Amino acid sequence: MSKKGTFRFASIGLGLVVAFVLLAVAPVGAEGADPNGVATAEANPSAPLNFAWTLIAAFLVFFMQAGFALVEAGFARAKNTVNILTKNFMDFCVGGLACWAFGFGLMFGGSKLASGLDQGSPIIGFSGFFLSGPAYDVSTAMLWIFQMVFAATAATIVSGAMAERTKITTYMAYSFFVSALIYPIFGHWVWGGGWLGAMGARDFAGSGVVHAVGGLVGLVGAWMVGPRTGKFNKDSTANALPGHNIAYVVLGTFILFFGWFGFNPGSTLAATDLRISVIAVNTFLAGVTGAVVAMYYSLATTGKADVALAANGSLAGLVGVTAPCAYVAPWAAVVIGGIAAILMVASVRFVENVLKVDDPVGAVSVHGACGLWGLLAVGIFADGTYSGVSGLIVGDVNQIVVQLLTMAVVLAWALGTGYILFALLKSAMGLRVSKREEEVGLDLTEHGMECYPPDQAMARA
Amino acid sequence: MSKKGTFRFASIGLGLVVAFVLLAVAPVGAEGADPNGVATAEANPSAPLNFAWTLIAAFLVFFMQAGFALVEAGFARAKNTVNILTKNFMDFCVGGLACWAFGFGLMFGGSKLASGLDQGSPIIGFSGFFLSGPAYDVSTAMLWIFQMVFAATAATIVSGAMAERTKITTYMAYSFFVSALIYPIFGHWVWGGGWLGAMGARDFAGSGVVHAVGGLVGLVGAWMVGPRTGKFNKDSTANALPGHNIAYVVLGTFILFFGWFGFNPGSTLAATDLRISVIAVNTFLAGVTGAVVAMYYSLATTGKADVALAANGSLAGLVGVTAPCAYVAPWAAVVIGGIAAILMVASVRFVENVLKVDDPVGAVSVHGACGLWGLLAVGIFADGTYSGVSGLIVGDVNQIVVQLLTMAVVLAWALGTGYILFALLKSAMGLRVSKREEEVGLDLTEHGMECYPPDQAMARA
Amino acid sequence: MSKKGTFRFASIGLGLVVAFVLLAVAPVGAEGADPNGVATAEANPSAPLNFAWTLIAAFLVFFMQAGFALVEAGFARAKNTVNILTKNFMDFCVGGLACWAFGFGLMFGGSKLASGLDQGSPIIGFSGFFLSGPAYDVSTAMLWIFQMVFAATAATIVSGAMAERTKITTYMAYSFFVSALIYPIFGHWVWGGGWLGAMGARDFAGSGVVHAVGGLVGLVGAWMVGPRTGKFNKDSTANALPGHNIAYVVLGTFILFFGWFGFNPGSTLAATDLRISVIAVNTFLAGVTGAVVAMYYSLATTGKADVALAANGSLAGLVGVTAPCAYVAPWAAVVIGGIAAILMVASVRFVENVLKVDDPVGAVSVHGACGLWGLLAVGIFADGTYSGVSGLIVGDVNQIVVQLLTMAVVLAWALGTGYILFALLKSAMGLRVSKREEEVGLDLTEHGMECYPPDQAMARA
Repeated sequence: MSKKGTFRFASIGLGLVVAFVLLAVAPVGAEGADPNGVATAEANPSAPLNFAWTLIAAFLVFFMQAGFALVEAGFARAKNTVNILTKNFMDFCVGGLACWAFGFGLMFGGSKLASGLDQGSPIIGFSGFFLSGPAYDVSTAMLWIFQMVFAATAATIVSGAMAERTKITTYMAYSFFVSALIYPIFGHWVWGGGWLGAMGARDFAGSGVVHAVGGLVGLVGAWMVGPRTGKFNKDSTANALPGHNIAYVVLGTFILFFGWFGFNPGSTLAATDLRISVIAVNTFLAGVTGAVVAMYYSLATTGKADVALAANGSLAGLVGVTAPCAYVAPWAAVVIGGIAAILMVASVRFVENVLKVDDPVGAVSVHGACGLWGLLAVGIFADGTYSGVSGLIVGDVNQIVVQLLTMAVVLAWALGTGYILFALLKSAMGLRVSKREEEVGLDLTEHGMECYPPDQAMARA
Repeated sequence: MSKKGTFRFASIGLGLVVAFVLLAVAPVGAEGADPNGVATAEANPSAPLNFAWTLIAAFLVFFMQAGFALVEAGFARAKNTVNILTKNFMDFCVGGLACWAFGFGLMFGGSKLASGLDQGSPIIGFSGFFLSGPAYDVSTAMLWIFQMVFAATAATIVSGAMAERTKITTYMAYSFFVSALIYPIFGHWVWGGGWLGAMGARDFAGSGVVHAVGGLVGLVGAWMVGPRTGKFNKDSTANALPGHNIAYVVLGTFILFFGWFGFNPGSTLAATDLRISVIAVNTFLAGVTGAVVAMYYSLATTGKADVALAANGSLAGLVGVTAPCAYVAPWAAVVIGGIAAILMVASVRFVENVLKVDDPVGAVSVHGACGLWGLLAVGIFADGTYSGVSGLIVGDVNQIVVQLLTMAVVLAWALGTGYILFALLKSAMGLRVSKREEEVGLDLTEHGMECYPPDQAMARA
Repeated sequence: MSKKGTFRFASIGLGLVVAFVLLAVAPVGAEGADPNGVATAEANPSAPLNFAWTLIAAFLVFFMQAGFALVEAGFARAKNTVNILTKNFMDFCVGGLACWAFGFGLMFGGSKLASGLDQGSPIIGFSGFFLSGPAYDVSTAMLWIFQMVFAATAATIVSGAMAERTKITTYMAYSFFVSALIYPIFGHWVWGGGWLGAMGARDFAGSGVVHAVGGLVGLVGAWMVGPRTGKFNKDSTANALPGHNIAYVVLGTFILFFGWFGFNPGSTLAATDLRISVIAVNTFLAGVTGAVVAMYYSLATTGKADVALAANGSLAGLVGVTAPCAYVAPWAAVVIGGIAAILMVASVRFVENVLKVDDPVGAVSVHGACGLWGLLAVGIFADGTYSGVSGLIVGDVNQIVVQLLTMAVVLAWALGTGYILFALLKSAMGLRVSKREEEVGLDLTEHGMECYPPDQAMARA
């Protein structure tokens, strides 16, 4: 076995040891847990509706994985399609187990949101591992599934930025660590009872926690793995490498937009909070405005109607409104979505032409840049009608100060931990396939198959 | 700038001026609005469940956009795939903003369904623009998102009838006016407190308001833009121009069927109305009967199992049951769906062979003809078990008279306003791409890209 | 008309006669039925939420049909794509009408779950046909739509096992009889008030009732129709016949996983049962564990990351957890899913190399073998926290004895009735297309069309 292989198996083995230790110390069927929900339903007559709402929202967010897979596959070349699909399929699988064992406990340990999560600190949580003991509880399970699909979203964003040249085994290891450590620890700070939330940081559905973390870790990954062969010329000008199926891009965007109606309105965790309707409207308006702005930008600059840009424009608008969706009025959602689309276009140029980083799907710009914008937008547009969150437009400056701090923290955390993670993986397993493998395509070299085997596709004879 | 370009920018500019005026007169944070929903939830303990139900239904209806996009893309030729996807993607985006600014206020102004909609007349509504002022309210927002996705459905139907030869910029302008004016004014008459509803017209989920309007406007559009090159021979017999991907057609139909479970049962706007289960059953039965009838028709006439016809048969059944779904028994839904499929087949022949109109996806027949049939079916099959609506089968003739009137009105309105709109757009912007552009394909000429770039797709080399 | 054609029309005619007789004897608008739900809502304040929950779950399960269609289409060769899509589309349509006329009444007649289902026996039900008379009721309709989509799932599983060589008309006839007789009678025994349920058999969401029945009937069908030409060599070693589109396989798997969140948690038929959150978590964990185990198996044995195997691994985990999902703790779901993936891999080899049966998509292994495993897993891992169901891990042996009996019964029933059905269809209509038709592809010969017509796809020229 090679040195890298040894490392891989050693790290998995270590994880298993830690897992069993944590499982062993967790008391099964502990006091205080309500695994069948009878006591919870009696104590709170609203629980059934709120459980149903949150679960259905979680299912919609889960389905976004299919959207990411299609968007990224469509933007990739045919020879790398199986590879990008595999990454999108496996990251939520590996991440799901990582989140079950470690991530959820680190993120929500100490939170008051569910039973059995009573140990935690402003920096990190440490209860609820494996959903065992007191965390074997219906309220904890409800919170877990909703948070799990959010963690999966953060993890999968990175696959797009690193598409078409990253090793699949390294990518699965990456998924484990993002879902087990990088995402949940920052998430704890904002949502799990940690220090940023205590200071008043507001990120309703995760422009920062989910999208900025994913996009910025993706920036580090795309930078460290290097550009695809042929992306940059010797004079460092960039070439377009068109994707192989625009229909996948559009279908994937529809699925993502659909799933966002779980992502944002579901983040109330309660249908008894009727603000859900305004959140849905704001989500819709920001997404469509982003698309319209990007489309008219394309028409104005090139005379062509670039649907791929419009799709990314809608995603930019959706990412941008994810943090402020509950705190702002519909007109503000329109403004936020429009600005997000402009920011996305500018960021794509900046990443490609200034940073010289190759991001095949625009994930850094859509999720990273617009995720940061979403955090800022809370501080600007929050109108005080919900949860007492007020921004500049109603004359309050406190919120925007906290939001700026949160932006600085997410930048430092995601870029810093992303750097450490990818540096470790690079030395242990290698990040990148060989030049020969990249040329042939990752489907044949990493997966031993093609997405569209020519023999079968033309079997008509 | 060309004359047509001038017109386009002028019309957009005018729209913006009107928008700002309306926004300016709308009081922000007005009395009576409940933007966070606390008062609404206290006043009505059923509100949380009914909000959740209506929102989830709206999300399902939103997802139908992906179904329309796939069905139409599958029926189009590969060279026009990006174009048809773009139209389906942009129409709900442009239409969404049109609906936010104008359409919703014209449709529901004066309706008692939500707060802040207190000004309206039997002919037109005039409150609720921009969801601002008293319309910045959770109940209004809930109604808005549900109605918005219906407007988007009406708008997108037209794209199929006009596929493969219509200019993209004209199409986006069309989407704006349908969503801002044509759809909402007729919708006001039936659902928004207008004169047809007051006379007793019943269209539960929009066979007429949504599907017939979309299908009939599409008929005008397809007629005015003219047939695709090669569709009709010199002796005016028609050629089949097969679509490029039947898998998209089938997947799109599955998505549409799935979304219809939001469209019809969601139109109660309340889960406390337990008729939702019968509505779901009726929707299902009409759709599957339509498919079975169309499939056996295909087997009986050609000996081949034409899945594209079966798919359109299921959509025909679904359109047909959309108006009567709440008022009829399951056996009647089977009959309605079966008749709809037969009607669709006959209408496809009529449109192609008698009207000599080229409708690449059968939208006029599926949505127009079967939409009218749905209105009629209420008058025949309503059994009096719900809302007191009774048709011929229980010996009541009053309802069918009103339904016939509604059919006449929707015919006149959709054909008339459609004619005016397309005539204006034709003179101002032009409807049709050039012969050369049509031959090369709209993807390269209008969008500067291909759906499946051959270089990338065969990059394996 | 040929002898086979005569039989077909005769059987349809006979069905219609029986249908009209049953319809005639069913009193319309009978006493006790509640077609608009007012009385039901008054009697049970939880009904609206539970209706909404069950209906939304049913819609998700319906959408699984699209997932099956895509997975099977992706695993098929391009020349048979329209055919497999048609089968997946038509089986739920034909099955839906069969279930409405016969299946539901045979399955739930005598059940106390809804109104109007008062006649039944331990062996078979006989009330509720056509949803007419006392079965024209909101509670019955709710139960019907949920059970209907389950029946459709059982029926559609078979299409994969018999893909690429089965006649389409025979397949539609098969769908009718499975949905009208084979599935509902076994379902009655377990869920509808029959003898297995009375003995204590527990199959929460249908590992046995749905998946094992479908998978085992598929085994009989695949065996009787014989292997595809070219699948087995003269020395009876097997060849891989790769599918034509892995993107469809992955997208289909995402859709199936998404729909499973309706399948399992929805099987409570009530959101007031808060165990739904644990069920959702268990469903997720078993699915992702199955994928991870299958993926690492692939990497360990071939060095390649086989995403098709990982997709089937996730489905295996999902099938395996379907029976026990409500009765076990999250850690057990992980174990169940992991074992299911290993079992699926072993079963694929056994079916191909020992039984010499050609199952193009692995349906027999995923649904049949793992369905049986799910029944067994209840007897092992049930921890007594829900419904008093306890397995070996809490020291109870009674449950596993009943589960083993249920496994034996489902094996005997599905293999026996499947044999009778396919033998009858073989003699009456023929099962298999001709060698020439198989070579050309079923799309052109059975459907007169191609999924991707080369002229249209390359129309760019």
